Amino acid sequence: MKKILLTVAYDGTEYSGWQIQPNAKTVEGTLRAAIEKLTGTVPETIGGSRTDAGVHALGNIVTFETDSPIPPERYSRALNSFLPQDIRVLHSCEKEMDFHPLRVPHKKRYEYRISEGEVVNPLRVRFVHHVYETLSVENMNRAAALFAGEHDFSSFCSAGAQVESKIRTVTACNVYLENDEIVIAVEGNGFLYNMIRILAGTLIEIGRGAMAPEQMKEILEAKNRSAAGPTAPPQGLTLIWNRCVEE
Amino acid sequence: MKKILLTVAYDGTEYSGWQIQPNAKTVEGTLRAAIEKLTGTVPETIGGSRTDAGVHALGNIVTFETDSPIPPERYSRALNSFLPQDIRVLHSCEKEMDFHPLRVPHKKRYEYRISEGEVVNPLRVRFVHHVYETLSVENMNRAAALFAGEHDFSSFCSAGAQVESKIRTVTACNVYLENDEIVIAVEGNGFLYNMIRILAGTLIEIGRGAMAPEQMKEILEAKNRSAAGPTAPPQGLTLIWNRCVEE
Repeated sequence: MKKILLTVAYDGTEYSGWQIQPNAKTVEGTLRAAIEKLTGTVPETIGGSRTDAGVHALGNIVTFETDSPIPPERYSRALNSFLPQDIRVLHSCEKEMDFHPLRVPHKKRYEYRISEGEVVNPLRVRFVHHVYETLSVENMNRAAALFAGEHDFSSFCSAGAQVESKIRTVTACNVYLENDEIVIAVEGNGFLYNMIRILAGTLIEIGRGAMAPEQMKEILEAKNRSAAGPTAPPQGLTLIWNRCVEE
Repeated sequence: MKKILLTVAYDGTEYSGWQIQPNAKTVEGTLRAAIEKLTGTVPETIGGSRTDAGVHALGNIVTFETDSPIPPERYSRALNSFLPQDIRVLHSCEKEMDFHPLRVPHKKRYEYRISEGEVVNPLRVRFVHHVYETLSVENMNRAAALFAGEHDFSSFCSAGAQVESKIRTVTACNVYLENDEIVIAVEGNGFLYNMIRILAGTLIEIGRGAMAPEQMKEILEAKNRSAAGPTAPPQGLTLIWNRCVEE
């Protein structure tokens, strides 16, 4: 048996999220079907990030075990020939048998993209959240600086999440303009359920002047979901990378 | 009666091209249906560029006549509420009744995008042509410089095109890298059927070293479609703008 690690990119528009479910087209289900076609066996896959319906990835990770004789580095090309064009395996390699993508220290980068103004570019509509108002990128970035650091992020976690501690460390949080789109870029060692989308919804409120940038501090201190802004829609969100930080 | 000019952007992936046809989903047909819903009358539309199936636009133009009392500048917002997200009206205004988008002097800019390497980014696959080899952008750009100017472009016209003269003026033709994609940018006052896609197919042959950049001159002089390279696929092509050059 070998443990194979894949790095995977996908346009999440047509999928009901990462996680395999019955009667739904999911990224994980589509990947499993491709691995089955290639190796002849249905694999147990373990994904690094369970992205929601409509969320994209440029570098999610996933592992599976196989006794296929295919050389580990060949999986990327071989699987791509069985996958639809909106899912691509970028890289494949072998890992130790006890490697588990959720149990090793890791760091992730997410970007949330916003398009402002009257009309959204139809070539970008799958990948941005459209807002009609003009937003203050400066104020959004001031609030983002207060979001960075080690905090209890209870205010930025959707109800129903079953985790023991809501303390996480956000190592970087910046808001900037890129090709006429506002980008909220966040890096950290772990994120709560819907954390980035609630952050985006809150920063949009701040950007349009409905809240002051300094209120970010109070929202964090409240440790209450209702203190933050709405959950922004999924299509603006992309998992840029998910790196295992090997000791 | 008023003549209304719309500037239109679309992701052409899901459409059988611009031109209305029975039993096919087209950009023009979708626009006409939206205008009918808004004004109550089926309009005669005249498009500035009849883009092929799978080709995109950031600024195509289209006119129609109407006796609706809707103010001309309101059409963009009003029509967008009846259109799918992959077609957007960017701007609307009134023109003189004798304005005809194909009979006024105009200038267009097209961009053809190529992604090189083993794997294409799934977030870009709708908008690029993927080639496995590494291409020489420098050689492609040298050939592009020879393509610019006033020439008989018969070698770059698909068979079956019914036009009197195949002489056109390409005012600019450049090849450059942008965000890891190769862009072929072409501006001119008129283009033959499939001209940019045959140019792209020829420049790719030059970029991979199958032809020398200087051969562009001989290909033009041959005035024969078989002298040029293959027709590159549609999804890499975007009409960037189509401007009426008013005297």
